[in-house]
Amino acid sequence: MGEFELIERYFTRPPRRAVQGVGDDCALLAPTPGQWCAVSSDLLVEGRHFLSTVPPRALGHKALAVNLSDLAACGATPTAFTLMLALPRVDESFLGGFSQGLYELADAHGVELVGGDTTAGPLCVGITVFGDVPPGQALRRDGARVGDDLWVSHPPGGGLGDARLALEVLRDQAQLAGDGFAALRRAMEWPQPRVALGQALRGLAHAAIDLSDGLTGDLGHVLARSRVGAEIDYSALPRSAVLAAQPEPVQQRCLLGGGDDYELLFSAPAAARPAVQRAAEAARVGVIRIGTVQAEAGLRVRMPDGRVLPQPPRGFDHFAGDA
Amino acid sequence: MGEFELIERYFTRPPRRAVQGVGDDCALLAPTPGQWCAVSSDLLVEGRHFLSTVPPRALGHKALAVNLSDLAACGATPTAFTLMLALPRVDESFLGGFSQGLYELADAHGVELVGGDTTAGPLCVGITVFGDVPPGQALRRDGARVGDDLWVSHPPGGGLGDARLALEVLRDQAQLAGDGFAALRRAMEWPQPRVALGQALRGLAHAAIDLSDGLTGDLGHVLARSRVGAEIDYSALPRSAVLAAQPEPVQQRCLLGGGDDYELLFSAPAAARPAVQRAAEAARVGVIRIGTVQAEAGLRVRMPDGRVLPQPPRGFDHFAGDA
Repeated sequence: MGEFELIERYFTRPPRRAVQGVGDDCALLAPTPGQWCAVSSDLLVEGRHFLSTVPPRALGHKALAVNLSDLAACGATPTAFTLMLALPRVDESFLGGFSQGLYELADAHGVELVGGDTTAGPLCVGITVFGDVPPGQALRRDGARVGDDLWVSHPPGGGLGDARLALEVLRDQAQLAGDGFAALRRAMEWPQPRVALGQALRGLAHAAIDLSDGLTGDLGHVLARSRVGAEIDYSALPRSAVLAAQPEPVQQRCLLGGGDDYELLFSAPAAARPAVQRAAEAARVGVIRIGTVQAEAGLRVRMPDGRVLPQPPRGFDHFAGDA
Repeated sequence: MGEFELIERYFTRPPRRAVQGVGDDCALLAPTPGQWCAVSSDLLVEGRHFLSTVPPRALGHKALAVNLSDLAACGATPTAFTLMLALPRVDESFLGGFSQGLYELADAHGVELVGGDTTAGPLCVGITVFGDVPPGQALRRDGARVGDDLWVSHPPGGGLGDARLALEVLRDQAQLAGDGFAALRRAMEWPQPRVALGQALRGLAHAAIDLSDGLTGDLGHVLARSRVGAEIDYSALPRSAVLAAQPEPVQQRCLLGGGDDYELLFSAPAAARPAVQRAAEAARVGVIRIGTVQAEAGLRVRMPDGRVLPQPPRGFDHFAGDA
């Protein structure tokens, strides 16, 4: 099977909203009248963003999920995406699973594959996603204000750091006593972008970001761009029972250094608490207050004994290595 | 230098037209009123689309050029792009050259880098480019009509196949008698997207495509989607003096199998010949008629002796190998 048959078989459907979809030099989109276009691009590389053992269907899901998560963080409604795929060779089993996972998530969010590029090469997946957002209403990183509550979203019964813990278990950096690995692996391979929550937070949240590089790193971006500081209540951070059973250093690394959470971190005024709770219920996702925006620069993590954690784990940096 | 400092130093400028550029979860674009948005994504992988010896500045140029070429082929006006870059390590010399080449071409076309992603990994560059095109006026692959002229663009004094010949010389598949390699290498590493020509052809050309995978392959896409056939006059194909000095089999491979030309191939009615010539002069690029669209399916390459070439070299397919 050649490149063009591959595209035809696995990545071509009749366009729905797009004026022109896969198969020409360009896709053509008719912008939604009166809306701004939010754009995000994420590149996933084997061995960096996913393991070689990832099920293809999960990879298709995750590649789109991490991009939808960026749209969620700015409160946009997903509309379309392009796919760039480098593959070592044509592998129909891989392509079948990958495209299934990709389309399942796309259909769940009403977002359409409109074009892209397929080539031979080391396995990597680049997606550019488009969304609509009303002018001036996008959530941004630079809007946090002193006195705001800091919130994070979390899955029912779950929390931050499970994806990181899954990776640590696979790397023998952490051990599991019980049988919780399936849930951890699910957190790592099947992140759920908080698209509905992001949209519901427009007009409520002052600032938002999605947690992809870990809480301290991503919160640090919000604080730097908003020119504020913050205090986090460590005991308030949502964590799964599996993570809560880990030794304290592992918990700290996973909760604070984290990575691959794809939950929303946002700030909102105290007066908006009931509205934030209603937004989360409508979006069927948990939210919890984890701290407060302060005037003093920097991030302080307050531990249960009242002391401030001296050196919180850093967020992930692709060229500086793990937290 | 970490990921975020790298982005800040090499890939961040104040937004011009974009509402929000690099540095948040999403870029925000205000669509041009009354225009459709043309979108194209291309992924370039080391060893596949460029050699490890490519000068970084040329790579920055080429990565954007091949995407602008897709916009050219649909007659769109470039507006913005995102960049996904996987790098084995932070290499400031590489980044300086790469970003210089990228921004030089971006500035030449008034197109703005609005976001993207940087990660560690095997060297590859993915760009998604956006352009404006008036509703219903985009050039497409499926509009060629029986009786249309077939045209290709070409550089002054140059033609098709020089990039392919450069690659063949580097791979010892072809030899150069004289000192023409600098020009060939320039064709391979510094393709010039025919953006102005593409825009000027709106309303004139019935169909268009950019030549990235070779003449027979790309023309084949146009013919298949337009449900027509064509005859090409081999002796009319524009070729540089360097290529014209090659043995006939090399010329055929390079002209017909080609690859990496990034010229426009388009069809237009005979009545439009003067207008096509004027469009090309305004765009400061050469154009030449190379054949005719016919009702009979398939592609016939007419040789100087009057015979049809039995097996023309195929176009490039990333999973089927070279022509």
